[in-house]
Amino acid sequence: MSEANASATRITPGNALRPEDIALEVKTGLAKPSEDIAEYALRLGDDALILAQRLGHWISRAPELEEDIALGNIALDQLGHARSFLTYAGAAWDKSEDDLAYFRREHEFRSVQLFEQPNGDFAATIARQFVVSYYQYELYRRLTESTDATISAIAAKAVKEVDYHRDHSAQWVLRLAGGTEESRTRMVHGLRTMWPYVGELFRDDELTGRLAQAGAAVEPSTLKADFDRLTGEVLKEAELEVPDVPAAPGGGRQGKHSEHLGYLLAEMQVLAREHPGASW
Amino acid sequence: MSEANASATRITPGNALRPEDIALEVKTGLAKPSEDIAEYALRLGDDALILAQRLGHWISRAPELEEDIALGNIALDQLGHARSFLTYAGAAWDKSEDDLAYFRREHEFRSVQLFEQPNGDFAATIARQFVVSYYQYELYRRLTESTDATISAIAAKAVKEVDYHRDHSAQWVLRLAGGTEESRTRMVHGLRTMWPYVGELFRDDELTGRLAQAGAAVEPSTLKADFDRLTGEVLKEAELEVPDVPAAPGGGRQGKHSEHLGYLLAEMQVLAREHPGASW
Repeated sequence: MSEANASATRITPGNALRPEDIALEVKTGLAKPSEDIAEYALRLGDDALILAQRLGHWISRAPELEEDIALGNIALDQLGHARSFLTYAGAAWDKSEDDLAYFRREHEFRSVQLFEQPNGDFAATIARQFVVSYYQYELYRRLTESTDATISAIAAKAVKEVDYHRDHSAQWVLRLAGGTEESRTRMVHGLRTMWPYVGELFRDDELTGRLAQAGAAVEPSTLKADFDRLTGEVLKEAELEVPDVPAAPGGGRQGKHSEHLGYLLAEMQVLAREHPGASW
Repeated sequence: MSEANASATRITPGNALRPEDIALEVKTGLAKPSEDIAEYALRLGDDALILAQRLGHWISRAPELEEDIALGNIALDQLGHARSFLTYAGAAWDKSEDDLAYFRREHEFRSVQLFEQPNGDFAATIARQFVVSYYQYELYRRLTESTDATISAIAAKAVKEVDYHRDHSAQWVLRLAGGTEESRTRMVHGLRTMWPYVGELFRDDELTGRLAQAGAAVEPSTLKADFDRLTGEVLKEAELEVPDVPAAPGGGRQGKHSEHLGYLLAEMQVLAREHPGASW
């Protein structure tokens, strides 16, 4: 710890930081991402932001009050990760996290399509959460070793929280699958609804190729084996099959989204856009 | 601490506990409220539950991402208080917190009408939050000395969190009042919208009379002087007047609600009611 404090920047690889810390580093010019890194941070920030908006809806609407709190906390964790990634991304373009969240149009969002899928019933939300948390855990775990110190620091904080999200979703998959006939049917249906969007998570492209080469990021495809193995273990224990459903075309990383994102953004952005630049 | 652990019950006055602790005490029969105490706990639990539902709506919809997280955290704090109070209340009638939250009808809710008022714009939400947090702080502060050990324990946890909520809302009142002409106009309007519901917070009735006599609760009217003084200081610093508006008739403690509660409950209860008794 004293070593980190002695450094000109508080950001050292693996040193978990809050969004406010990132903002300070950005403001003082100590942390400035390359265009590639900014684009990458935008992707991860958008994923977390969109998911947070979806999960926030559950506060006081889950089937149990205890679960309201759990999903609410997960939403706030995701929102924290989003703030960090977006603050860092924005430093490349002189934009704040709020500029990026509230003043971009649909085709400028870089989130994968899974994250914007509607909540559906509780089992569908759990199915989405199950896929997301196992994916994010593998991703963030590897990003703690990113050669980009800020990406590494954000990942170091996020991976601990996502580890809990993973446990939360796995417990629910088991509970729903092993509950009543009704809850099991819904769990199966939830997984089938979300699974078409799994493939997109693990798609490589030129950007991830360049960043992986530099040791700053990982190729998404390299996460797939661990994801399959670990989700497979949970599904096996729950006596559930990996859904055999055709993949959706995807394209979220290039700004192609399902019909659901537009509505989500309209809700999310309306207040900030009503009074652009207002000093709230 | 070792003293508290040595006792048969973990609940001692002023010893902050989580909802799960209350539930355990209730389950093992160590904590069982009288009918009066249960009715009182129901009132406070309903206040917090309804407010949490309203605030949860702001996640990813506030004018700043940082504020999303603040309001989300306040919502989750309130939901935590609601769970504790409802768990305790339910022990008198063999009901769980979820039974009470999801399977009562509108006229059975005991929250005051302020808490169910619509979010309106951000300034209106802040105005409601300003009144609520100063009121709850004075209430919980006194309830830490309740002769009912469970009420005292719940209040001891809640008062620390509400102290932060108070600071949060006061900062926003100052910032909006001292911001642009637009933000100041909205703050004034927000206070005028919420102020008709302030009177109801401080209304005594037979139940609070009996409980105050026994040292288990306080008469709401006795909180008014401190509330007026402390909110008055903030309003003065913000160069705002105490709104001069007629009081709404109120009646929430007797199950009389404004037209807004029905819609709120419909949203909150739909999932649990779709599958009553389902083992989610």
